[in-house]
Amino acid sequence: MKRNDEGLAFLLQYENVAWYEDGVVRILDRRIYPLEVTYVICHSHTEVAQAIADMVTQSGGPYVAAAMGMALAAWEVRDRSGEEALAFLTRAAYTLSHARPTTSAKMEQVTGGCLSAAVTAVHAGKTGQDLVDAMQETAVARLYDNYERHARMGAYLADVTPSKATIMTQCFAENIIGSYLRECRRRNYEVKVICPETRPYFQGARLTASVAKDMDFDVTVITDNMPGYTMKEKKVDLFTSAADVVTMDGHIINKVGTFQIALCAQYWGIPYYATRNPDPAHPDLSSVVIEERDPELVLEAMGTRTTLPGVNGYYPAFDVTPPKLCDGIVTEKGIFAPTDLHRFFL
Amino acid sequence: MKRNDEGLAFLLQYENVAWYEDGVVRILDRRIYPLEVTYVICHSHTEVAQAIADMVTQSGGPYVAAAMGMALAAWEVRDRSGEEALAFLTRAAYTLSHARPTTSAKMEQVTGGCLSAAVTAVHAGKTGQDLVDAMQETAVARLYDNYERHARMGAYLADVTPSKATIMTQCFAENIIGSYLRECRRRNYEVKVICPETRPYFQGARLTASVAKDMDFDVTVITDNMPGYTMKEKKVDLFTSAADVVTMDGHIINKVGTFQIALCAQYWGIPYYATRNPDPAHPDLSSVVIEERDPELVLEAMGTRTTLPGVNGYYPAFDVTPPKLCDGIVTEKGIFAPTDLHRFFL
Repeated sequence: MKRNDEGLAFLLQYENVAWYEDGVVRILDRRIYPLEVTYVICHSHTEVAQAIADMVTQSGGPYVAAAMGMALAAWEVRDRSGEEALAFLTRAAYTLSHARPTTSAKMEQVTGGCLSAAVTAVHAGKTGQDLVDAMQETAVARLYDNYERHARMGAYLADVTPSKATIMTQCFAENIIGSYLRECRRRNYEVKVICPETRPYFQGARLTASVAKDMDFDVTVITDNMPGYTMKEKKVDLFTSAADVVTMDGHIINKVGTFQIALCAQYWGIPYYATRNPDPAHPDLSSVVIEERDPELVLEAMGTRTTLPGVNGYYPAFDVTPPKLCDGIVTEKGIFAPTDLHRFFL
Repeated sequence: MKRNDEGLAFLLQYENVAWYEDGVVRILDRRIYPLEVTYVICHSHTEVAQAIADMVTQSGGPYVAAAMGMALAAWEVRDRSGEEALAFLTRAAYTLSHARPTTSAKMEQVTGGCLSAAVTAVHAGKTGQDLVDAMQETAVARLYDNYERHARMGAYLADVTPSKATIMTQCFAENIIGSYLRECRRRNYEVKVICPETRPYFQGARLTASVAKDMDFDVTVITDNMPGYTMKEKKVDLFTSAADVVTMDGHIINKVGTFQIALCAQYWGIPYYATRNPDPAHPDLSSVVIEERDPELVLEAMGTRTTLPGVNGYYPAFDVTPPKLCDGIVTEKGIFAPTDLHRFFL
C-alpha cells in the first residue's frame, strides 16, 4: 500500500472516504461533512449497500465503498469454503452494485472486478483471512488506479484552462477536481473557483468548496439559482463537472442542475467539459434510469423544513445534458468530442 | 376600508404583510414564514426602512411597508406644523424608497404618491392625527388599487393558460400569483403548481408554495437546480414570474434564477410570462443597479452554515432576463410583446 505515498495521502484526504479494516467498513458521512467529520460504521456488506442508498457517500465515494464492501463480504464468509465464499460474494456484488439505480452499470464494473479477483484468489487456494486480504488489496489497487487516471484527466483539463482562469464546478468531482486544481497550481495557473452549492445535499458548498479551500484556492459559493448570472458577472472561463454516466452517444448524466448550467454556459459562450470515460453499457439514453429520491429531502434544508405540510416534493437526483451543450468529454485517454466517443475504445 | 370585503380578506391573507396602526408598523417576517408567523414591530419610518433592507418582507411587501412607513412618519411629526411635517415626510420618502437599490425608482413612485397625498392633506389644513389618517388611507387605497390591478393581470395570464396546466413559478409573485390561481379556479381550470424553492431565502418554498397550498392547489417544491429537468419531465406548460423592474426595452429584472429558468423554458419550447407594468424610469439596463446582498447569506441555509470558514460567498439578489427569452409582459392593460412596451403608455 505504500507504492505511491503522495498519491495515498491525497486519496486519504479527498477520496479515501471508505475503508475496510478488521471486519468493519468505515464510510465518511459526506451528508454532514465538513460541519462534522463522522463515519458510518458498517458490519456487513448489506449495511454498506444501505449506506450507499442512504447517500452517506456520493460522487466517486460509492465505488470505493462498494469495493471495500466486497472485502467486508469476504470477511463475513471467512469460515466457509472457497465455493461457498464465491457464491456469497457473487450475491454481495449484486447487492452492492444495485444500491442506486442510475450508476449500477458502472458499479457492476467495480464489484465485477472484485469478484474476478476473488475467483483468482480462490483458485489459488486462498480462503478466510487470505481472501479478505486479497479483496482489500483489490480495493486499494482500484484507489491507486483511480488516482492515476484522475491525475491524467486533471492534466488534460488543465491543458484547456487559461493560465488565469475562473472556473465553475457543479456538485463534487472529488479526486478529479482535486487532481485538476493540483495540476493548475503546479503550472502556476491563477485559478479562482466558483461552486454552486448543489441542493439538496449541498455537495458543492460542503465538499467541492472545502476541498478547494483546503488547497488554499480562492473559492466562492453561490446558490443554485445563480450560475447563469454569475457566469457573466464574474467572467467565468470554464465550466466543468464530473458525470455519473457518459453514454456512448455523448449524453452526460450528472447531478441535477448540470443541464441548466451547461445551457447557461452555451448562452454565454463558455466551454463546458465533463470528466468521465464513456460507458459502453449505455449506448444511448434508453438504458439510463434517472433515480428519483425521497421527495421529503427537497422540502428541508440542513435539517429544517422549508414549507407547509401537504406541499409535495420532487427529487430527481440527476439530469441529462445533451452532447450539443458540451465542448469535450475529458477521459483518461484525452478529451473527446461528445459525438466521437467510439474513438475512446479504438 | 370596507368597500371591497372579499378583496380586503384576500389582501390580508396574501399581501397585507405590513400594517400601520397607533404609532406602529407591523411587518410580517417573511424570512421565517410559514414556519413561524411573527411580526417585526417598527416604531419609526427608519426602522421600517431598515426592515426593508433586512429583507423582513420581499416581493411586493416592501411597497406596502413603505406606504405604511409614510403613515408612521406622519405619526412621528404629529405635534409639528404642516410645513415641518411635509419637510420630514419628504426626507422619510427618500429614506424608505432607497432602502434597497434595485427597486428605488418603483419605490419612489409609492412614496411619491404618499407625499403628494400629504401635500394635498396639509393644504386642506390637516395636521396631527388627521394627517396620519390621510397617509394610512393612501396606503390602504394603494392596496385596493393593487388588488384590482393584480386581479386584471391574473385574468390576462389565465387567458394564455391551458385549461389543464402545470405551471412553474419563480420566487414569490404574492398577490399576482394568488389572483391568477383564484381566476384559474373560477374558470374550473385544472392547475398544478411547481415552485423552485428560491435560495437563499426559500421564498418559493415558504411563500409561493404555501399560498398555493392554502388555496388547495396541487403544489410541488423543487430545488433551484431542478427546473431545467423538471420542465421536461413534468410537462410544464407555462413559466411565470413577477418582476422587480421591467425596462422599456423589455429586460426583466427579477429574483436571481429567473434568467436560467427562462433559458430552460426557451430550450423546451415552454412560454414564459413576466407580470409587471414596464417602468419608464428605466428605458434600458443602463439605469438598473443589481443589488448585491450580504455574501454570508449564501453560506448558510435555514440558519445552518454549509461550508468551511474562509470560503467566500456571492449574492446577487436579481438577474436580468433578455426580452428574447420572454413570450409576454403581463401588465394591467394586457399582455405586451417585450419589444413593444411603449404601446403600454399610448
